[in-house]
Amino acid sequence: MESGNSQFFVGIDIGGTKIQVVIADRHGAIHGEARKKHKGAVDFEWVVGRSVAAVDAALDKAKLGRKEISALGIGAPSPILPDGTAVHAPNLGWQNVPLVATFAQELGWPTYAANDCDAGTFGEHRFGAGQAAQTVVGLFMGTGIGGGLVRNGEILAGDNYQGAEFGHTKVQVGGQRCGCGARGCLEAYASKLGIASFVAHQVNCEGRETMLTELCDGDYRSLRSSALAKAYRATDAVAVAAIDQAADYLGIGVANAITLLAPSVIVLGGGVIEALGSLLLNRVVSAAEQASWPPGSFADTSIRLAKLGDHAVALGAAAWAIQRGQF
Amino acid sequence: MESGNSQFFVGIDIGGTKIQVVIADRHGAIHGEARKKHKGAVDFEWVVGRSVAAVDAALDKAKLGRKEISALGIGAPSPILPDGTAVHAPNLGWQNVPLVATFAQELGWPTYAANDCDAGTFGEHRFGAGQAAQTVVGLFMGTGIGGGLVRNGEILAGDNYQGAEFGHTKVQVGGQRCGCGARGCLEAYASKLGIASFVAHQVNCEGRETMLTELCDGDYRSLRSSALAKAYRATDAVAVAAIDQAADYLGIGVANAITLLAPSVIVLGGGVIEALGSLLLNRVVSAAEQASWPPGSFADTSIRLAKLGDHAVALGAAAWAIQRGQF
Repeated sequence: MESGNSQFFVGIDIGGTKIQVVIADRHGAIHGEARKKHKGAVDFEWVVGRSVAAVDAALDKAKLGRKEISALGIGAPSPILPDGTAVHAPNLGWQNVPLVATFAQELGWPTYAANDCDAGTFGEHRFGAGQAAQTVVGLFMGTGIGGGLVRNGEILAGDNYQGAEFGHTKVQVGGQRCGCGARGCLEAYASKLGIASFVAHQVNCEGRETMLTELCDGDYRSLRSSALAKAYRATDAVAVAAIDQAADYLGIGVANAITLLAPSVIVLGGGVIEALGSLLLNRVVSAAEQASWPPGSFADTSIRLAKLGDHAVALGAAAWAIQRGQF
Repeated sequence: MESGNSQFFVGIDIGGTKIQVVIADRHGAIHGEARKKHKGAVDFEWVVGRSVAAVDAALDKAKLGRKEISALGIGAPSPILPDGTAVHAPNLGWQNVPLVATFAQELGWPTYAANDCDAGTFGEHRFGAGQAAQTVVGLFMGTGIGGGLVRNGEILAGDNYQGAEFGHTKVQVGGQRCGCGARGCLEAYASKLGIASFVAHQVNCEGRETMLTELCDGDYRSLRSSALAKAYRATDAVAVAAIDQAADYLGIGVANAITLLAPSVIVLGGGVIEALGSLLLNRVVSAAEQASWPPGSFADTSIRLAKLGDHAVALGAAAWAIQRGQF
């Protein structure tokens, strides 16, 4: 049933430090939005309450009432089972919460949910850099490395709905320790945490100096993407080396995705890419080209910067609701 | 249309050194087979002729005539396009040969083709170790490392049909040189070629001795799986170290497959596994468990030895013909 712009959908992005809500139409235009910050490790009921408040604020901005909404989509940092359970969200401290059932009861709309990186990839597929592609891989370079895989309009997260964890594939066996406890994960090199540990090593073990030290008060794990961008643009040698290494490893992640999945489009997003993407894209592409196989296959994949910025998850969640509910 | 055992199908496995034909029914029972050796880098017309001769020999053994065959499936060491073109088969020296069209004209049967590792994975999914699983990954440890991915009864090889190249994903950036020219590929460690280069290094650079030297006349790249098995069972120290390293890396490949694709079943096959699989399985599983993510996800994947042995590709090709032609 095509009904143009007359239907509206709500997308909620439940992140590790914020809740973001958009009111979107089926073309991905945003008619209202709201954002609430939080401090992580917050209990589920509290998040539901804050989310509902944010939804009402976004509806106000869109000059719409709850009755004018056709469906709700939620992106959350957890694997999502088909029954709508969020299995485990380490950043929020959740285990097996009834995500979809609770929101459906609270707001009364048909409700669907997806993992946040899957939703972000789906959003880019539907409204952003991955439109009309059969297979889209999303790689999100932020504090960690998130990934998503969409094929033929379907989110593929494996038979237990816990796959597409690109950040924890091993690219350097026995290498750098990752936050997950293992060694050699892509995330240990290509994320903000990887950049932080490179910088800390340069300063603390090699005695080098960098403007990043002042920009983060010596707490490299708290480095913001904007600080990285500032130091990179200023050609601070340590920052450039750290970020270039991360870009090279992101290229390895891109290459492995091409070698295994041969997607038509790989979308690069996340905070570091939003701050630095246009400066890093050539380097990532070049590393990916060297490392992908078979040689002719590389040219069949377009590697693009994300277009939806930090709306990707909320818009993708709304798009997922439209798709799943056949609105 | 279900017609029990009354229909017969031909599967051809065109390998780098042999052509193998099976006559199978829809349950995967083999009613006749034939095998022809060749020396690699053989031209396409020659392979077609030898294959047709092998088909007739297998039909003779099955006491069947050409008219009693419903369809033909072919597995070949090349990406296969939807129109049946084999894009490039480096082991055979082929570029863009009309594989399906030529065989269809030659034998007159409905004809379908798949990449050999995809066909092998599909065969294990249909008749072997991966039955009834939604997603099956096949990893074949032979001279190189081949891979295949089957989901919902469909072969997934990416948008350009050239993906599922598990052997050339990078697991050790900057590491050992692979036959493909790049460094750090899974294949550079976990294949017979990886074992050969480990052994050569131990002997030539570390001055160690091993019974493998005599078993291959000092040409480690020609080591046969049976020789590896003999030395491993004899607890030859160099052979054990080389093969254990390969098993550990194969476990990394398994872990990355779980982390990305979360399949219900991963089937391990290929010559080295046929010769040594039951001795190596625990080691591969243990390496995979340590390296896969998220932690709970590992238990959802069953890691199994292949069941179809060296019939996997030919049987898988026949099964693919049954599936694609809806017989």
